[in-house]
Amino acid sequence: MKQQRIRRVLAELEKMGLQQMLITDPMSIYYLTDVYILPFERFYGLYINADGKIVLFLNKLFTIPEGVEAEKVWYSDTDPVTDYVAACIDPARTLGVDKDLHARFLLPLMEKKAAAGFVNSSLAVDLTRGIKDAEEQEKMRIASAINDQAMEKFKGLIHEGVTEKQVADQMLQIYLDLGADGYSFTPIVSFGANAADPHHEPDDTVLREGDCVLFDVGCIKDGYCSDMTRTFYYKYADDHCRQIYDLVREANESAEEKIRPGIPIKELDNTARDIISEKGYGEYFNHRLGHFIGLSEHEYGDVSAANEWPAQPGMIFSIEPGIYLPGDTGVRIEDLVLVTEDGVERLNVYPKELQIID
Amino acid sequence: MKQQRIRRVLAELEKMGLQQMLITDPMSIYYLTDVYILPFERFYGLYINADGKIVLFLNKLFTIPEGVEAEKVWYSDTDPVTDYVAACIDPARTLGVDKDLHARFLLPLMEKKAAAGFVNSSLAVDLTRGIKDAEEQEKMRIASAINDQAMEKFKGLIHEGVTEKQVADQMLQIYLDLGADGYSFTPIVSFGANAADPHHEPDDTVLREGDCVLFDVGCIKDGYCSDMTRTFYYKYADDHCRQIYDLVREANESAEEKIRPGIPIKELDNTARDIISEKGYGEYFNHRLGHFIGLSEHEYGDVSAANEWPAQPGMIFSIEPGIYLPGDTGVRIEDLVLVTEDGVERLNVYPKELQIID
Repeated sequence: MKQQRIRRVLAELEKMGLQQMLITDPMSIYYLTDVYILPFERFYGLYINADGKIVLFLNKLFTIPEGVEAEKVWYSDTDPVTDYVAACIDPARTLGVDKDLHARFLLPLMEKKAAAGFVNSSLAVDLTRGIKDAEEQEKMRIASAINDQAMEKFKGLIHEGVTEKQVADQMLQIYLDLGADGYSFTPIVSFGANAADPHHEPDDTVLREGDCVLFDVGCIKDGYCSDMTRTFYYKYADDHCRQIYDLVREANESAEEKIRPGIPIKELDNTARDIISEKGYGEYFNHRLGHFIGLSEHEYGDVSAANEWPAQPGMIFSIEPGIYLPGDTGVRIEDLVLVTEDGVERLNVYPKELQIID
Repeated sequence: MKQQRIRRVLAELEKMGLQQMLITDPMSIYYLTDVYILPFERFYGLYINADGKIVLFLNKLFTIPEGVEAEKVWYSDTDPVTDYVAACIDPARTLGVDKDLHARFLLPLMEKKAAAGFVNSSLAVDLTRGIKDAEEQEKMRIASAINDQAMEKFKGLIHEGVTEKQVADQMLQIYLDLGADGYSFTPIVSFGANAADPHHEPDDTVLREGDCVLFDVGCIKDGYCSDMTRTFYYKYADDHCRQIYDLVREANESAEEKIRPGIPIKELDNTARDIISEKGYGEYFNHRLGHFIGLSEHEYGDVSAANEWPAQPGMIFSIEPGIYLPGDTGVRIEDLVLVTEDGVERLNVYPKELQIID
């Protein structure tokens, strides 16, 4: 059990006027208990109460290590698990629930009047997870260092006649050889006009001269995720491509330079977006600037115009401006950054100068 | 749009007394619309109403093909998406919701009183998905045929001194070479006592003589999943291993032989469980006999003592009895089967005789 982290969550709950919470995100449970289970459709939950009660709800099919300091409620596939959960909750008080709690569990708990009310209190866990402790920061550095090395090798997979899928199919082995445990997400490899779709999946598109080659890739190491994007060009980059590339790079670097404790996170998004909008490409930068990351590839917390939070030391997020021109081309440049006591540490140091692959 | 499938879902909803539903499982939306989006934490939903209204809620970051015959509501990361969803729902009637609808969307819809009530109506979609049409049956046959071929190659990866992880790291390429699109789930490779954990993850355990070698593996092809388990032995199998292997095989084969339209699915579980329990191993077969499968590796529908459904032509599920002896060894034998008009079609034909790897 990570008692220090549980205390931080309970302190956040208290600020919300809550004393009890049911956490169901397996990654959040892992973060708080060191127990990792992938429950598929089965119920898996951690109940915490300010009075010190900590209960894990476990299917008998799951296996957990010895010595986990929590009360355990085991159930089998044919047991009425929401009855067991309801019996554990203080019915006189409101229950905070995980934002990801599924309707199939939440609706029965409501029907049984298991609590005096139900509110989404995920922020208590998410704010805690959003500020990485020293152990986590070090793991994030290592995962991103592998990603930097991998990017150079991915560039080496590009040659005449290759397809996106042929490139993508070789990437996992490269990560494993570099010591990663696997992908943090399915890699994006986009040639030419395919890069105009920020979430394009590698297909049988064949590389052509003058294409951009966009890699949005990440690995997991020791449970922690990396995530980086670079955009290269094959054989040459025409003037228009160079122009939007430089613009995206300027947006990326200007936003990163602004990072320091206390700056509202929305200002980072504004900085990058203003640079792109001033040149008339605002409508082609159609997503937030970035997202928080850690045990999960996307953690709670946008780097967007909607996020009023001040940056705090220990926060790690992506800075990933892009320009997407449908049917034509796309550029995205992404790093992970760590807010430090007096500024920013870039977890990715792979170069951002425009590179031609010959 | 798959109009025939949507009509089947609406007919099931009508039996529940419902006229409208909000579907949020991306796989269910794909099944009904041919649009596949992986929304991560963003909202993605399909609203259907018996009056013919069909609405897709899409983040502006998503890309969908031309010609999708549904009303589309696009939102950006800073828009109040649950307001848009609430505005679309008929507030005078109960809304059926997806079992997987997350609390962060369900609780605001409730607060806004978007509907007269909220019930989990996933069964309407799940029962429809549970009975595969001809197109789906053919895709499932192909995915499992690849899995049969892959199993023989996986067996070939076993040699003196190899670790589970070294074996597992070679499996994706084998699937890709056989024409699969990827894993349907992270493969399980378990040597010896590790096989006593049904969900063991491949680690650095080195193979030893006399170990069982359990592969629980599956691939995706054209969107459809395969899933099969075989248990081999390295160099030799002692009498005790042979005894439990034969018992599991008998349980597997006896359950499969019973499959025909009309038989309650729980009877299949009973058949396998009785065989294992009669020999005193009942407590070591600690999970349901199987699960439904298709677009997702685990679909709604247990093959368990709790499932009263009669088997129907078009249903596809796994039959996977096992015996798990902690600290000692484990066996599981799993096939996918298709209920036909007059019996059963086994989608896996890989042999089930005990095999020694030399």
